[in-house]
Amino acid sequence: MASLILLCVLLLWPLSSGSEVVDVLVILPKNNSYLFSYPRVAPALQYAQRRLRGADPHGALTFNLSYADSECGNSALFSLVDDSCEKRPDLILGPVCEYAAASVARLASHWDIPMVTAGALAAAFSQKSGEYSHLTRVAPSYLKMAETFAAMFQHFSWRSALLVYEDDKEERTCHFTLEAVFLLLDPDLHDHLRTHMLSGARDERLDAEDLLHAVREAEVVIMCMGADVIREVMLAAHRRRLTDGSTVYFNIELFNTSSYGNGSWKRGDKLDTEARLAYASLNTVTLLKTVKPEFENFSMEVNRSIQKERLADCQDCGSINMFLEGFHDALLLYGIALHEATRKGFSKKDGAQITAHMWNRTFEGIAGPVSMDANGDREQDFSIMAMTRPEEGSYEVVANYFAINGSFQVLPAFNTDRFTLRGRRKPSPPTP
Amino acid sequence: MASLILLCVLLLWPLSSGSEVVDVLVILPKNNSYLFSYPRVAPALQYAQRRLRGADPHGALTFNLSYADSECGNSALFSLVDDSCEKRPDLILGPVCEYAAASVARLASHWDIPMVTAGALAAAFSQKSGEYSHLTRVAPSYLKMAETFAAMFQHFSWRSALLVYEDDKEERTCHFTLEAVFLLLDPDLHDHLRTHMLSGARDERLDAEDLLHAVREAEVVIMCMGADVIREVMLAAHRRRLTDGSTVYFNIELFNTSSYGNGSWKRGDKLDTEARLAYASLNTVTLLKTVKPEFENFSMEVNRSIQKERLADCQDCGSINMFLEGFHDALLLYGIALHEATRKGFSKKDGAQITAHMWNRTFEGIAGPVSMDANGDREQDFSIMAMTRPEEGSYEVVANYFAINGSFQVLPAFNTDRFTLRGRRKPSPPTP
Repeated sequence: MASLILLCVLLLWPLSSGSEVVDVLVILPKNNSYLFSYPRVAPALQYAQRRLRGADPHGALTFNLSYADSECGNSALFSLVDDSCEKRPDLILGPVCEYAAASVARLASHWDIPMVTAGALAAAFSQKSGEYSHLTRVAPSYLKMAETFAAMFQHFSWRSALLVYEDDKEERTCHFTLEAVFLLLDPDLHDHLRTHMLSGARDERLDAEDLLHAVREAEVVIMCMGADVIREVMLAAHRRRLTDGSTVYFNIELFNTSSYGNGSWKRGDKLDTEARLAYASLNTVTLLKTVKPEFENFSMEVNRSIQKERLADCQDCGSINMFLEGFHDALLLYGIALHEATRKGFSKKDGAQITAHMWNRTFEGIAGPVSMDANGDREQDFSIMAMTRPEEGSYEVVANYFAINGSFQVLPAFNTDRFTLRGRRKPSPPTP
Repeated sequence: MASLILLCVLLLWPLSSGSEVVDVLVILPKNNSYLFSYPRVAPALQYAQRRLRGADPHGALTFNLSYADSECGNSALFSLVDDSCEKRPDLILGPVCEYAAASVARLASHWDIPMVTAGALAAAFSQKSGEYSHLTRVAPSYLKMAETFAAMFQHFSWRSALLVYEDDKEERTCHFTLEAVFLLLDPDLHDHLRTHMLSGARDERLDAEDLLHAVREAEVVIMCMGADVIREVMLAAHRRRLTDGSTVYFNIELFNTSSYGNGSWKRGDKLDTEARLAYASLNTVTLLKTVKPEFENFSMEVNRSIQKERLADCQDCGSINMFLEGFHDALLLYGIALHEATRKGFSKKDGAQITAHMWNRTFEGIAGPVSMDANGDREQDFSIMAMTRPEEGSYEVVANYFAINGSFQVLPAFNTDRFTLRGRRKPSPPTP
């Protein structure tokens, strides 16, 4: 169905203009330790290229992809400048890391080149009126995720929170993730918001006393950090009887959407039983997943390519993450927008016009419909997962948050008790 | 004498290499509301060019200057990229504004181009090991200025301070100025440091109550803001009897070195008498000025050029400021370093080598000797000015701070009482 729509769109490509070559510069890290390294994203882009080619039997449109190493900082800008001095690209895909994306987005605006990325998720990039005018974000930004928390806080009348995060001072994923939560929570709540930063240094011992004191003061604890540290915190909280229902715990899981929930308390060590009991109090906010047959095919093909390449230092390489999906959809979205703009008489060099055609529209992405808001950012629905069978320690989705109207959908597995602050006061029950 | 040294240096220019053209890209704001706009700096650079030409009778070295508009933000980077795609400059002069300078300095390092500026004064630019490796600062940085305060605090055993500043969110001069003071004061003092930010919005009324409460708590008040706001604060403090000697007040005056001190309390309004009394408690930290005959000539010639151009919107255009002096010296310093590096077999394209030759050396600038430290930053001595004739309200230098050994030179006009906290406790007397 999606391919059909795409076919219809691209068959209408104005033949009179002859064959058009679109130069795409993909700026991502070369290093495979990033979920969005370009050796990992490349097969997803090739898949999108094949789809676009299949929908364009006259060969009117060719995408010429080249890759540049962004690392996770200013190298991204240098790559762009060095690669584009003689001939500027028509489209920039990436970068993902915030500091890398910021300088590239500024120059893209200055040069009137559309930039589409599955990254640049921090709140600052929402301001599109100035230096980020040509930036389109196909992955859900942290602010979109934070809407889920804002809605829950309002719904359950929670009145205080503790934000706990690890900061690596490079990607700063968790810093920017919880910054968005902070920004979106009701300002009246700000006096009752505490933050607690854990150093990213692995061998630095978790200062549990300090943290648990802060946990005791808060109704809701929202964590963004590595799975092992979350386990450590949950175990420590459990031992101090802070998982008795007087506090609601959340973690946030956005990127590696295939691996969360199903046993993240489990390590095969002697603490597993205790961890399972502790995790009974932990809820996970994550992307609402849609599955359609085409996604399975995409997933298989991309995995096959990655396996064939035998990428070095590639952890979690077997799973499709939000970035791979996002960059696939990015190329598709650009293709549709370019087509429309061209039909109106614009060329591939009219970057602002093509950007405008990517915003405020819905199209079929590889995993389902993708809605872009009027500000060029992706709309996204989120799920809340909870442990529903404590004896097995298995998780399932208990509620969904729908961005379009800010509403909750409470599923049969939802248990009001989990979101009620025992020993504090009873929140209003959620309306199904 | 200075010209003689320069002549000797440049006469030794290796003739065998033929005539060398050095492309200099000057990146400064076009808008004359900045003290360092390029129409204002240009005559100073032309003066330096003439000196270099006069010292090079064989015409072995030609400086080809072009100008690009930096505004005070990211335009600086765009100017550099757009101007340098086809042919990279051999030297970048400017930018001054911190945010403009940061991105240009990063690209200069990446492209191995020396960058010399009389700006980029913020503390962050002191880290030369990474992205600012090619940055040379010919004007005294805020950290160098802050040394004066650190030395005074230690000398007089002051134990608490209030930093009051205006923040315009664009240049952020005062934000960065007092950031450096904060960074350099003894960490043991940090618990007794308060900051108070005034909005840059002109029509927002000064919230005196709030500020005066903070003033009352501090032994030392250090201010960085416009002359009119300082007058307002001093008047308010005087009315609450906070100028009774229990608090020591400072302002910082770096840029417009010809206009401070001589009557800045005076407005010709009915508050003048009161203001004069209030200012008897105010001390000014400023650059230690040296004067040599050549500077007068420079000053006259530059002023004549500026007047001839009839620059629009040019306030304070009649005075030579630190930036004009700095950029003159920047070109001189580069000329000397290029000469030395060339004699060792390097070319003008060996940016790192030429940069290294600018560091850790002393040369004759237009106003006197200029010492560059081993980190490529200018050493600077500072003066402390105080009102010495309260009946006239006139100021003079009462002490000097010498960077080289961190010592004070107390002048005859120094009055120990002014730096003694009356009603608190007596500091150790300064040793002459």
